[in-house]
Amino acid sequence: MAEPFGAVEVIRTKRDGGALSDAQIDWVISAYTRGAVADEQMAALAMAVLLRGLTPAELTRWTAAMIESGERLDLSGVSRPTTDKHSTGGVGDKITLPLAPLVAACGAAVPQLSGRGLGHTGGTLDKLESIPGWRAAVSNEDFVRQLNEVGAVVCAAGDQLAPADRKLYALRDVTGTVESIPLIASSIMSKKIAEGSASLVLDVKVGTGAFMKDLASARELAATMVSLGTAHGVRTVALLTDMSTPLGRTAGNALEVAESVEVLAGGGPADVVALTLALAREMLAGAGLPDVDPAEALRDGRAMDVWRAMIAAQGGDPAAPLPTARERHVVAAPVSGLLTRLDALAVGVAAWRLGAGRARKEDAVAAGAGVVMLAKPGDEVREGQPLLELHADDPALFGRALEALDGGYDIGGELTPTPLVIDRIS
Amino acid sequence: MAEPFGAVEVIRTKRDGGALSDAQIDWVISAYTRGAVADEQMAALAMAVLLRGLTPAELTRWTAAMIESGERLDLSGVSRPTTDKHSTGGVGDKITLPLAPLVAACGAAVPQLSGRGLGHTGGTLDKLESIPGWRAAVSNEDFVRQLNEVGAVVCAAGDQLAPADRKLYALRDVTGTVESIPLIASSIMSKKIAEGSASLVLDVKVGTGAFMKDLASARELAATMVSLGTAHGVRTVALLTDMSTPLGRTAGNALEVAESVEVLAGGGPADVVALTLALAREMLAGAGLPDVDPAEALRDGRAMDVWRAMIAAQGGDPAAPLPTARERHVVAAPVSGLLTRLDALAVGVAAWRLGAGRARKEDAVAAGAGVVMLAKPGDEVREGQPLLELHADDPALFGRALEALDGGYDIGGELTPTPLVIDRIS
Repeated sequence: MAEPFGAVEVIRTKRDGGALSDAQIDWVISAYTRGAVADEQMAALAMAVLLRGLTPAELTRWTAAMIESGERLDLSGVSRPTTDKHSTGGVGDKITLPLAPLVAACGAAVPQLSGRGLGHTGGTLDKLESIPGWRAAVSNEDFVRQLNEVGAVVCAAGDQLAPADRKLYALRDVTGTVESIPLIASSIMSKKIAEGSASLVLDVKVGTGAFMKDLASARELAATMVSLGTAHGVRTVALLTDMSTPLGRTAGNALEVAESVEVLAGGGPADVVALTLALAREMLAGAGLPDVDPAEALRDGRAMDVWRAMIAAQGGDPAAPLPTARERHVVAAPVSGLLTRLDALAVGVAAWRLGAGRARKEDAVAAGAGVVMLAKPGDEVREGQPLLELHADDPALFGRALEALDGGYDIGGELTPTPLVIDRIS
Repeated sequence: MAEPFGAVEVIRTKRDGGALSDAQIDWVISAYTRGAVADEQMAALAMAVLLRGLTPAELTRWTAAMIESGERLDLSGVSRPTTDKHSTGGVGDKITLPLAPLVAACGAAVPQLSGRGLGHTGGTLDKLESIPGWRAAVSNEDFVRQLNEVGAVVCAAGDQLAPADRKLYALRDVTGTVESIPLIASSIMSKKIAEGSASLVLDVKVGTGAFMKDLASARELAATMVSLGTAHGVRTVALLTDMSTPLGRTAGNALEVAESVEVLAGGGPADVVALTLALAREMLAGAGLPDVDPAEALRDGRAMDVWRAMIAAQGGDPAAPLPTARERHVVAAPVSGLLTRLDALAVGVAAWRLGAGRARKEDAVAAGAGVVMLAKPGDEVREGQPLLELHADDPALFGRALEALDGGYDIGGELTPTPLVIDRIS
């Protein structure tokens, strides 16, 4: 088949700072997906995009072309209003686990296609997979049925959802072209828009443990994604939230499931509860249910009921004991004083090295591994008091995890409190 | 084998505007050559280099690494001083053909590893291959022997000469990363330095028919290559020469061989003779023979003697009739007046479309095809007088060649004479 463009001409246009035409964008994404544009050509284009940028019009079209590369889920058979949340990834970010059933308990449907973790941020599917029997794979038919019957599905995206993104993301990962706001935004939003939800709340993390380390970049990414969602007819808002310290008191897989269940039972760490409620209110507003108070559904056990149903619907046993790691190692406070800093990246890397995360896509994660934070910034600690508890199956892993934690916390000095929700962008 | 670097880390360093370390450069070129850095990774790096540049120190090391990827020819067995010329490519640029034997006739040895043409600029090997029996392949042993016995070899580079460049050049060609001065300079110079010549004259073309369209870029490329040659111990100078109009009166393969033989016989177009002599004087100076007058060796037939020996040494019959194209088409002057412009690119593309050049590396070229220029800028022409003669084996090719020539010449108006040699950079 004769191609309407040459890859070199498209690459040169962007390389020289020009704007790609709609037809060029449609072609290059489609041709890359079917293999008519080679990996090395897309890599050169991705680098040119990273260094030259995309105009808002180019980015909207680029995202549309990525969505068009696969199927867009049809949720017209779902009787409730649909709403979803996406987090750009953080340490201890188990929010989806209590949030999805909570929002469903309030009357909306939450169709969440989620991912596995890579590097120091955990993946929602990895966490749920620590529940005995739970399966991440759900067919399109079961997806719609579960949304109607339970109100929430958290599952793996099928191969037919934005295949261009799957291919491009793997390429960017090995070619140093991940850190591009337009490419990040189109990657996230192509999948989220293809998922079919009518509204979407973005939790854009900012801080040491986040992908975006500074507020300006996080704000730019949030605004870019909100514009993209809006341009594609999805009601989209973003919260910028703090990721300088981990969320909650656990970072790991089964450890975070257990903490989420505490939240669903009406307890749990204050920051996890607060962020869960803040995001739930945004999602309910997006779903046209602004007057429903999610706090009530936490208190009265309805969210827990949906959680149990949601886990059971995907083969999981919500009552089964969660896996635990074979070995523990306690990090004690070296001095007494106020814990003023506990760095999200340090804890994230430690949890990763303990086996909770993976370095390569093919790796398995250890369900029980991770870090339990026995103190958080703002807590007074006494010398010798347990500060952190490291969980791993293999005690040989403690050494490198401890290295990651070296310099990762401060006792004494000023506590500079950061608001959990920094800004809202709509 | 454990790699000392990760490709992503190297790519990110350059992407973010940093300088690569010597060890990073050595590694990435070597790893790419042996396949441990993938094409898509090198493509991203090439685009980052194109957009971010290389410092002089990085470029020198990059070039050294490309040379180190293969063998550097040992010309210590050559009894005469060695000197070579490289042209960045132009239309009608047959200069190597009279130049190499001329310089050899003056007492130097000319070890020229040359290439085939791609696109609108012809390749020296393609031209020589139009001579019945002539072979481009010469073993290293025969190379040295021919240099001693004849004084000049023009042949194809072996696979072991800068293999990194061969691989990288093919990649750049399909990834829109050709137009980078550091990458162009290191590509040319790695091969020329590996060739083993003690001195080198660069003919950097500038104008419509050249790779460098403007003087500033040509000057930058020339200065970059001169620095690289000098840094690697090769006495290097560059002439910037005009390529706004074709060199001589022919563009093609056998057509240019015939014109070159005219020059060797003491005739030929004035511009070809002038540039041949200018480059010969630079080469002889580089070889430590500044007082030898090459004009004399043209006049007295010594250059022609070396030409015949050089062709015969590679199996060619210098006395055999040259191939001619089956069909001719004359372009007549549409009006009378002064021919003020004959565009090099237009003629180059026309010759290419007539079969003299190739669009893809695998293509064959037609030995007899090309363009004969019956008038050049500065000539008065009469309406109806033959201006150009197109030669092709297939008359169906005339149409698209004529399209390329449309608007490619002006009769009337101002003649703005350009010096043939614009500048000298050492």
